Amino acid sequence: MFSTNPQVDRHGELRHLLSIEGLPAALITRILDAAQPYAESEQKKQPVLTGKSVFNIFFENSTRTRTTFEIAAKRLSADVINLAMNTSSTAKGETLLDTVDNLAAMQADMFIVRHGSSGAPYLIAQHLAATGRNHISVVNAGDGRHAHPTQGLLDMYTIRHYKKDFTNLTVAIVGDVLHSRVARSQIHALTTLGVPEVRVIAPKTLVPAGMERMGVRVFNSMSDGLRGVDVVMMLRLQNERMQGALLPSTHEYFKTYGLTPEKLALAKPDAIVLHPGPMNRGVEIDSAVADGKQAVILPQVSFGIAVRMAVMAMLGGKA
Amino acid sequence: MFSTNPQVDRHGELRHLLSIEGLPAALITRILDAAQPYAESEQKKQPVLTGKSVFNIFFENSTRTRTTFEIAAKRLSADVINLAMNTSSTAKGETLLDTVDNLAAMQADMFIVRHGSSGAPYLIAQHLAATGRNHISVVNAGDGRHAHPTQGLLDMYTIRHYKKDFTNLTVAIVGDVLHSRVARSQIHALTTLGVPEVRVIAPKTLVPAGMERMGVRVFNSMSDGLRGVDVVMMLRLQNERMQGALLPSTHEYFKTYGLTPEKLALAKPDAIVLHPGPMNRGVEIDSAVADGKQAVILPQVSFGIAVRMAVMAMLGGKA
Amino acid sequence: MFSTNPQVDRHGELRHLLSIEGLPAALITRILDAAQPYAESEQKKQPVLTGKSVFNIFFENSTRTRTTFEIAAKRLSADVINLAMNTSSTAKGETLLDTVDNLAAMQADMFIVRHGSSGAPYLIAQHLAATGRNHISVVNAGDGRHAHPTQGLLDMYTIRHYKKDFTNLTVAIVGDVLHSRVARSQIHALTTLGVPEVRVIAPKTLVPAGMERMGVRVFNSMSDGLRGVDVVMMLRLQNERMQGALLPSTHEYFKTYGLTPEKLALAKPDAIVLHPGPMNRGVEIDSAVADGKQAVILPQVSFGIAVRMAVMAMLGGKA
Repeated sequence: MFSTNPQVDRHGELRHLLSIEGLPAALITRILDAAQPYAESEQKKQPVLTGKSVFNIFFENSTRTRTTFEIAAKRLSADVINLAMNTSSTAKGETLLDTVDNLAAMQADMFIVRHGSSGAPYLIAQHLAATGRNHISVVNAGDGRHAHPTQGLLDMYTIRHYKKDFTNLTVAIVGDVLHSRVARSQIHALTTLGVPEVRVIAPKTLVPAGMERMGVRVFNSMSDGLRGVDVVMMLRLQNERMQGALLPSTHEYFKTYGLTPEKLALAKPDAIVLHPGPMNRGVEIDSAVADGKQAVILPQVSFGIAVRMAVMAMLGGKA
Repeated sequence: MFSTNPQVDRHGELRHLLSIEGLPAALITRILDAAQPYAESEQKKQPVLTGKSVFNIFFENSTRTRTTFEIAAKRLSADVINLAMNTSSTAKGETLLDTVDNLAAMQADMFIVRHGSSGAPYLIAQHLAATGRNHISVVNAGDGRHAHPTQGLLDMYTIRHYKKDFTNLTVAIVGDVLHSRVARSQIHALTTLGVPEVRVIAPKTLVPAGMERMGVRVFNSMSDGLRGVDVVMMLRLQNERMQGALLPSTHEYFKTYGLTPEKLALAKPDAIVLHPGPMNRGVEIDSAVADGKQAVILPQVSFGIAVRMAVMAMLGGKA
Repeated sequence: MFSTNPQVDRHGELRHLLSIEGLPAALITRILDAAQPYAESEQKKQPVLTGKSVFNIFFENSTRTRTTFEIAAKRLSADVINLAMNTSSTAKGETLLDTVDNLAAMQADMFIVRHGSSGAPYLIAQHLAATGRNHISVVNAGDGRHAHPTQGLLDMYTIRHYKKDFTNLTVAIVGDVLHSRVARSQIHALTTLGVPEVRVIAPKTLVPAGMERMGVRVFNSMSDGLRGVDVVMMLRLQNERMQGALLPSTHEYFKTYGLTPEKLALAKPDAIVLHPGPMNRGVEIDSAVADGKQAVILPQVSFGIAVRMAVMAMLGGKA
């Protein structure tokens, strides 16, 4: 039903955005190029998706992510419908695919899907193809531990904005790689775009087995891992996911892995610091760094709107 | 204050949509006719209600119904305000009519009302008339066990779409008639439009006393009731409403009243199957039927948007 | 960082709306003048804020207030994003200012802020100035016990509409002054606009110490306080805030301080009655008064939309 890559059609155009894995470098670059006018334009509202219906289908609550997609869609002049699915028909026993069929029958043009289970957006895209509704696009807004591709793309946009070229960079990803869908998207994007050295810095308990096979170097110490890097990508410490014995205490974590000015001094002097938000100040990042000159955390948010507009415009056919 | 029929003004125009009971056949037909261009148009967004304010006032949570009205209103270019009233001022002790007065004072043009109590939308329409605000229209989006008229209308649209003529049909309504506001709307619509034989199929415990007075034939067995019908209208088994001893078990219910391919074979070969959703697969309907060729359940959803657009456009004065 | 008055820029233009305290009489009058065309226009939708992004940031639930701002912004053609912050990232431990920074980075143009803590909107405005984002305006939609300036402004609009001139009025504010942010906004507005006599009528337990310093006369009895007044401004009895021994019972309260036709007869024959809503009928106000000829409670709601449109239009640069 699907060709090998459901995200890309036979002409190499973006069909869905499910994961950065499987996106060719040229397509990633085209998305970033398409985002640039949106990031730079004075004109916030654009008539690109006028009359189109974008459904934000959130099976998991995430006000922040939902807001970024909602504002991106509204700036493209789409009609946006927000669906908090945890309080909806699924609670009445309807299956996921029946819900999808119903929303598709309302003549949806695009589904933005957030789901607690890895693969749910892929399943939806597959079902739409199987039932002859290929004109509806699916954008993964975070699925379980799997992927969060627009986050990965906005990170790439941010790095390109400040560093211009990917092919001479050393990039360190720091923190809870084990539970992070953001980290997976980032690693795929960085290696695909030709970053020669991607490092992961984390305590042993937070590094998945076989991490090196993704093309990264694993470090367990900040002093080794941060030395000479151009880009530091911090991860959020997912307190809510860590029950039990994986970590000693947040205080202890901050001492060892929290990004302080002292540790950041090991990186190149012009290194930039990214964080996907929301930040735990004093846990994974020190306020002096979060509010410091090297942080590009707020530009990430602005670029995130532009990148989501670009993805939606490409899927809607005009970008 | 009200003439006998608050839904229709003295020129025979739709004033509110409160119940299918009391709508003349000609007016129902005009609504279905008005829906047709919306169902068939390529152009989703229409400038029919530009500048009008539509309030979705939901005293009961129903994401699905709210979504269909929201998207219908947005496609007509209205401004839509969603109000989840169970978490609102009414919780602070405000009366229903004070809430209505307040929203009316915000220069509302239309109220879409969902309420757990039968008659609430009628009460609101009556109050608006009594206070000289006849320009605000009320659409009943489901009130207690009473009515759900847009569901009834979309069912009629669907039957007309597939069967063309109502006057030679045999239609069976199957399931929990006792607790269903959908069933009442359907029966009124079918008899009004001239369907010569309307059947109800349900266990004795789920048939209200005096059902026959509505002009239907009651069957307690599927093998008798389904024989030779043109249209099968399934009802959702409202698990949440059935405490206690009305039914043996969902498994038992499925065996006796669940629509399987075998039972459906008793109907005419070109019989169509409707369901208002959300479906309980394996309870009132078998997946082989739900996903089969005779099911028109997803077209119902599409037609539902068109019918709601038609009703809102007629109430807004241009349809 | 701020000049003495953060709400007004050096040219005397409105910069934020945080509190009526500190607004010169001329600026209040300009807001009321700007609201008039919106209150009187046949044309509900205006292209004043096209392409602008208005964020309703509600840290406290208030469906009514949120709705008035949402509809005002939509009638000005803005894109509106509703954020229920009690269920959002702040729950994940993000600080208030990090949340603000993130929303600002999404290229917000205006924040409508409701917060349980007095001063939160001021803090946000201060932070935006400190971080060089003065182009984002803040409107206080109610902060703790501090202020609710658009309520105060709509009250002034209502009084001016019915009484034309402020400088010969006697105005009584009745009820739970102690817990009311509305009362503070009203008193500031009335004294600034030149009302020669502002009275407060409340039981001793509900009058803050030093009330007279705000320029009001305090009465503990309705028969003394209402005598000869032109305007009666009722306050809502905040049941939910009054634990314990401040009041005997709502029945007793109604007997002593509830506004009945008998008590209202002590005021001037053409006195008007205001109430911010939602009303507790039979507690602070009798239904005969609430629904009577002297009540202007529903016009308040209509004027409230117009006043909010005027404030937003002035902050958006075109009013």
